[in-house]
Amino acid sequence: MSLNPADSAFLDRVASRVGTGVLSEPEPRYLEEPRGRFAGQAGAVAKPRSVEEVAALVRLCNESSVPVVPYGGGTGLVGGQVKGEGVVPLVISLERMRAIRDVFPEENVLNAEAGAVLEAVQAAAQEADRLFPLSLAAQGSCQIGGNLATNAGGVNVLRYGNARDLCLGLEAVLPNGEIWHGLSRLRKDNTGYDLKNLLIGAEGSLGIITAASLKLFARPVGEGTALMAVPSVAAALDLLAITRDHVGEAVSAFELIRREGLDFLAETMPEVRQPFAEKPDWCVLIDLGLGAGQEPQSVLEEIFATALERDLVLDGLIAQSESQRGDFWSVRESIPLANRKIGAILSNDISIPISRIAEFVVEGHGALAKLGSLRINAFGHLGDGNLHYNVYPPKGENRNDYNHLIDDVKDIVNGLVHKYNGSISAEHGIGRMKTGELERFGDPVKLATMRAIKAALDPNGIMNPGVVLKV
Amino acid sequence: MSLNPADSAFLDRVASRVGTGVLSEPEPRYLEEPRGRFAGQAGAVAKPRSVEEVAALVRLCNESSVPVVPYGGGTGLVGGQVKGEGVVPLVISLERMRAIRDVFPEENVLNAEAGAVLEAVQAAAQEADRLFPLSLAAQGSCQIGGNLATNAGGVNVLRYGNARDLCLGLEAVLPNGEIWHGLSRLRKDNTGYDLKNLLIGAEGSLGIITAASLKLFARPVGEGTALMAVPSVAAALDLLAITRDHVGEAVSAFELIRREGLDFLAETMPEVRQPFAEKPDWCVLIDLGLGAGQEPQSVLEEIFATALERDLVLDGLIAQSESQRGDFWSVRESIPLANRKIGAILSNDISIPISRIAEFVVEGHGALAKLGSLRINAFGHLGDGNLHYNVYPPKGENRNDYNHLIDDVKDIVNGLVHKYNGSISAEHGIGRMKTGELERFGDPVKLATMRAIKAALDPNGIMNPGVVLKV
Repeated sequence: MSLNPADSAFLDRVASRVGTGVLSEPEPRYLEEPRGRFAGQAGAVAKPRSVEEVAALVRLCNESSVPVVPYGGGTGLVGGQVKGEGVVPLVISLERMRAIRDVFPEENVLNAEAGAVLEAVQAAAQEADRLFPLSLAAQGSCQIGGNLATNAGGVNVLRYGNARDLCLGLEAVLPNGEIWHGLSRLRKDNTGYDLKNLLIGAEGSLGIITAASLKLFARPVGEGTALMAVPSVAAALDLLAITRDHVGEAVSAFELIRREGLDFLAETMPEVRQPFAEKPDWCVLIDLGLGAGQEPQSVLEEIFATALERDLVLDGLIAQSESQRGDFWSVRESIPLANRKIGAILSNDISIPISRIAEFVVEGHGALAKLGSLRINAFGHLGDGNLHYNVYPPKGENRNDYNHLIDDVKDIVNGLVHKYNGSISAEHGIGRMKTGELERFGDPVKLATMRAIKAALDPNGIMNPGVVLKV
Repeated sequence: MSLNPADSAFLDRVASRVGTGVLSEPEPRYLEEPRGRFAGQAGAVAKPRSVEEVAALVRLCNESSVPVVPYGGGTGLVGGQVKGEGVVPLVISLERMRAIRDVFPEENVLNAEAGAVLEAVQAAAQEADRLFPLSLAAQGSCQIGGNLATNAGGVNVLRYGNARDLCLGLEAVLPNGEIWHGLSRLRKDNTGYDLKNLLIGAEGSLGIITAASLKLFARPVGEGTALMAVPSVAAALDLLAITRDHVGEAVSAFELIRREGLDFLAETMPEVRQPFAEKPDWCVLIDLGLGAGQEPQSVLEEIFATALERDLVLDGLIAQSESQRGDFWSVRESIPLANRKIGAILSNDISIPISRIAEFVVEGHGALAKLGSLRINAFGHLGDGNLHYNVYPPKGENRNDYNHLIDDVKDIVNGLVHKYNGSISAEHGIGRMKTGELERFGDPVKLATMRAIKAALDPNGIMNPGVVLKV
């Protein structure tokens, strides 16, 4: 299985087949990723306007064994969108395929092309008085095709599920250049293998998603948001249980924030208003989306009162207006950017069985302390068992002086995650960054099966080589 | 790819390797299916007690190219559990692997072995004060492994999803006899291809599910059930929208019942109490599972009043007690048995985009009327767009005198389903019954991809041959 570069002879052939205007020079932005850990390369960036053009491009690449890197919004955090090593690929960007093809409000279905920016999909749903609940920090630039290829998570997974759970069907180009017409408005369809879920989360290694049928939901009638300071992660989990006892499935988000996150914000983004006069060690952001007849603020007050009686909360702020809700959310949503400004030695995106998270956090803290006075910012989607568990140098020091610790930190965190039956990648995926860790910690039978599927669907190995599975 | 029978020489080898007590004579019940359309054959029925024994059996079959038929509760309706033609298989029944391995109430997770009967899984969840929502007519005998292999649906899909949506992880034996240890308590795990969803719905053709991690839910605080007579299917859909406006996601079931269903009940099961003094042409069963502070009966009264103002309901009965709820449900749940007693010319399990169901029902009625005065019982999971659309001979006549019409009825129904972008199998699967229809109506690229996956994972073609894909 040897690959050939997307060189000028190949690109000339492509240009003669797909017409002018599809190929363009690889601007630097296609060769970068947000954390600056990987740099890409590309013979050219193809910007097809239709699924047929995508199919023609992939067919040509497959005939000539030229590697393909599918490109969405470029916001992935594990290097899936940048192929820096080996044979120079053709990058296929979906950015021109961004139409909202159809909206069926009475069926709660929306069909979007892969290049539609997540915010545009959310807006199209809202225009039809519906909710498309996928929501994450990069929503202003990430694309729905990339969201699906990586099975994106975000802040509303607790209630509505991952990207996978929000998708009814796909249109995709397979590695042989054939088009699978699998868009669907059906809620139930048991006609053969689940190709949809195989492509979702495959990070472009089994084909290119070109459009998707997405599930919409009723918009909540009453929304409310609170920030509650808690004495511990264990208390936060008890608070989640209380919240669910009060409102059941109406908990839209339950996000953990560690004091370090607030410190980093204060240090790097003083313009973000600090919610508490004194920063608590731990707090949670609770977001409710209620039906008719329930008043969010009073429900949140009841939850707070119940938790207070049981010493599970130290302080609480309930948003009194939409603008205050926005302030609370901006605290949560600014933390990843503050983190980036501080600069992590290592960022981890892990999940742990929910009942063991508190224990994990304590043990992780102890184990990492042995490496020095590192700072840990553990935050994120507590209700899903998903923490972003990032490790930073001591205050005032630079991550670049701590590169010698990366492997130690990685070993400690991954070892603990494995011990707790957790996942080394809860929502970011494997990309090119974690293929070694997947080989080390993944189930060997699953890995062998993945390789068999990859070889069967992509015998020439052209689709995003080096992603998920080592080449 | 030629298969060898599970003959006495092979069975002797098996007995010498897996020990005594695993193999048994094939009793008739393993060779039958509920509708009597297919008859099976088997060299023996193996009843392994552990995943290791399942693996040993499959390895032996794979080495000798002996076909395997995995056997759960035997309640499937499309012949997936009975191989009547070709080489005699080894049937592997999971009935001895029925342990509830673990319950994690605080995580809403339960791990069950594949042979656990669905009702036993429901009971184990209830014992932990939780709900396992998968619910269907065969729940007293179907097994969770079979439910997952066929991606079972049932009455609570509207709120909680299909079997697929209720599963967090699997333990399974793959066609080469290797064990995939994929049980998981994690809500988020993006580490590689979605093998779980590939096995779910593959109807045993890609491996044998031996255990599953299942999602549990909070039990609703207040439950209520109503039967409402509606003037048309279109009105039923409007009533569903009204119901959702009132209670959002708390609609647990929304089941359509046609007058024929009530007639069949009266004719064959007079012991089931008829709910309405005069049988309506159409009615719906509405089931709500509400949170604290909402009173089911008054909510249902409000829904009825709103619908009455808009002429969407003709009559309504709201259950006043648990026993009356049981009576209402027994009407719905007895219809499949009454149907079987009447005897259908053809039973269909279809789904249609929800907004087009009413139109489909009218057009289907018109098209079938051209074949004679056939009776149609269209009923089921209206909220999911899923109808059981069964066609019967005129009253007093026998289905066996109408076999000459089967193909015509099938062509009319499938043709209409295809025209409306529906599915020819919403929840029952393809089995051995619908492989021809899948080839005719399925997307050819998807079918080719399915064949490539099957060949990659099961190169000797031993796993449930003839199911889903024609051999």
